[in-house]
Amino acid sequence: MDRIYLDQAATSFPKAEGVAAAMTDYIEHIGVNINRGGYNQAYRAAGLVYDARESLCSLFDFDKPSHVIFTQSITYAMNMILKGFLKEGDHVLVSSLEHNAVMRPLTQLQEERGISFTRIPCNAYGEIDLDEIEPLIRSNTRAVIMTHASNLTGVLHPIREIGALAHKKGLRFIVDTAQTAGVFPISMKEMQIDALAFTGHKTLLGPQGIGGFLMTDEMAAQTKALISGGTGSISDTEQVPDFLPDKFEAGTLNLPGIAGLQAGLSYISKQGAKQIRERERMLTNLFLTGILDIENIRIVGRKHVYDHTEGYQEEQDYAPIVSVQCRNIDESELAYRLDTQYGIMTRVGMHCAPHAHKALGTFPKGTLRFSFGFQNREEDIRRAVFALRKECGSK
Amino acid sequence: MDRIYLDQAATSFPKAEGVAAAMTDYIEHIGVNINRGGYNQAYRAAGLVYDARESLCSLFDFDKPSHVIFTQSITYAMNMILKGFLKEGDHVLVSSLEHNAVMRPLTQLQEERGISFTRIPCNAYGEIDLDEIEPLIRSNTRAVIMTHASNLTGVLHPIREIGALAHKKGLRFIVDTAQTAGVFPISMKEMQIDALAFTGHKTLLGPQGIGGFLMTDEMAAQTKALISGGTGSISDTEQVPDFLPDKFEAGTLNLPGIAGLQAGLSYISKQGAKQIRERERMLTNLFLTGILDIENIRIVGRKHVYDHTEGYQEEQDYAPIVSVQCRNIDESELAYRLDTQYGIMTRVGMHCAPHAHKALGTFPKGTLRFSFGFQNREEDIRRAVFALRKECGSK
Repeated sequence: MDRIYLDQAATSFPKAEGVAAAMTDYIEHIGVNINRGGYNQAYRAAGLVYDARESLCSLFDFDKPSHVIFTQSITYAMNMILKGFLKEGDHVLVSSLEHNAVMRPLTQLQEERGISFTRIPCNAYGEIDLDEIEPLIRSNTRAVIMTHASNLTGVLHPIREIGALAHKKGLRFIVDTAQTAGVFPISMKEMQIDALAFTGHKTLLGPQGIGGFLMTDEMAAQTKALISGGTGSISDTEQVPDFLPDKFEAGTLNLPGIAGLQAGLSYISKQGAKQIRERERMLTNLFLTGILDIENIRIVGRKHVYDHTEGYQEEQDYAPIVSVQCRNIDESELAYRLDTQYGIMTRVGMHCAPHAHKALGTFPKGTLRFSFGFQNREEDIRRAVFALRKECGSK
Repeated sequence: MDRIYLDQAATSFPKAEGVAAAMTDYIEHIGVNINRGGYNQAYRAAGLVYDARESLCSLFDFDKPSHVIFTQSITYAMNMILKGFLKEGDHVLVSSLEHNAVMRPLTQLQEERGISFTRIPCNAYGEIDLDEIEPLIRSNTRAVIMTHASNLTGVLHPIREIGALAHKKGLRFIVDTAQTAGVFPISMKEMQIDALAFTGHKTLLGPQGIGGFLMTDEMAAQTKALISGGTGSISDTEQVPDFLPDKFEAGTLNLPGIAGLQAGLSYISKQGAKQIRERERMLTNLFLTGILDIENIRIVGRKHVYDHTEGYQEEQDYAPIVSVQCRNIDESELAYRLDTQYGIMTRVGMHCAPHAHKALGTFPKGTLRFSFGFQNREEDIRRAVFALRKECGSK
């Protein structure tokens, strides 16, 4: 059976053309470490890493390649930002839709370091009323932490407005771009983002094992290194270097992963983010138009209008993620049938975002999530719609 | 010019046959995440990761695959062990030859958490007198942390004896196997190791970007998670799971890296650790025999006898690493000439182990380090010897 992958929000598949080849080339022809040997290959490796830093600066409208930090994943990046920056007694604001990559570190910090957090409320569509933010700010509030798009419904937070508000109030603004990087326009400068965390293996179409963060100089100066070790710099001391990227990049980097990520970034740059975004929106609308009238399906947290000529039309931007609940069948059973009978891969449950489900009224049942990517075919969507109509019935 | 890679202690090159292919296969044919989707491919990915955990258990004589934790590097592993386990006011013992992957985290913990450490003294050959350890133990001493082999001279610490002593005194024993895993026999059980950190890209012949640690259940129960986030388990809570591996493996793993590491482990298992070790010893002895009578070269921290029939003979096991200093030429200049005139890649400086240089009397000048691997040819060694004789003169 031909397999259809609709779990793109967990990791993208297939990866961008050239990702595996770039990694193989690194492993077979460059191989060496950076900042460790003085020979020629080491400079070639360093050049490749520098190019990736520059590509990410260009993608996120940021001007300091040295302040692009590579980690294993966005989870590591978020831990390094939050645990490095927050001090005993600090308070932060978060959205109600955060992933556990943010909430579990904060919960740990609450227990271990007396840090507190307040969730900014949202409506049943995941939308924030900007006027509700200011009254939540306390004298010890230091930062606003926010996912750009929900990994549950795809709803985008108004990060431009929230960044402006955060800075007006002297707060640092930390953004999780796991579901939007490379697809939606993000400017660290214009959106006043102090720390931006990214993952390489989702929307950036690179391999698993590479992610990281970009951080302003001002914020970096206030952030301790969560991880330390050899850097190949100031190697005559057992102190952590105070300059970037070395301060936050200890030990050997995932160099083949960086080569793969760079291939993903090149692919995106060649295709164009706008074209990717439009194609993904087209696929999402095709899916929504197809399932809208299935009476046993409830689409979670999406505002839409249905036009008899145009089909499904969204009122605002969403990442290509659709969560549903079903009335006639358990979502886990439905996911199992989609997989085994139709070859359709989806994801069911909490999606590592339990409070998002509470905010949207889908806790503790969870949802069945469909997520689409640039390389999905229209035929994939039609088959998913067909399967859902078959299993959940239609009017 | 044909290039000769003698910086194997920084990262091995070439990688084991099949490493890049295994990673490409993962990226192009499996692709998906583990613990995230319920579809078939996800189980295939999970199986591959499980196999790698089992291979590492088998390599290190350990019986809990769930207690094998994957990280980006051994540096991350050491940070997670030390910062997760040590509490305010704790004291630890370390060898005098530790890498900054151990010393920088400890220095941070000293400043941030009031942790103290004492270095176990060694002689000019890096050897520890076991009788000197016990008097260093204090009432608040909780662990002994030790590299198996020095990354500067290759000298092996007697970890079996030190593990026994540590356990007799109720201390946890933490071992860094960066320069020995897969080549020298290591048994967590017999050597009474509570936490063993490994890297995938050196002696295990895998790619950069993968490393980790193995930890006993007893020690894991006393160790907090330094990094937390989504695990695909108990996803209805914002608490960190208390079971392994999830407690220490948050976020998406470096799955292509694990596939590559598994290829390295298979290669080693096929070749045989003993055969690898003997070949590396032969290459090292060939090198030492060749340079022993170059009067301007001083070999750092190695005990040896020279036999006119047999050539260079070591009195004990060493990892295939040789550090030298030169009388007639600065080591950096020599490294540069070796690279540009002879195509020989080495490494000069502190090797991220400043105190090891202090212990061995080579601080702050540093050394020029040659390190060999299973796949180096005898011809590589002869050319290195030729270059050194030419540049440093001979009797």
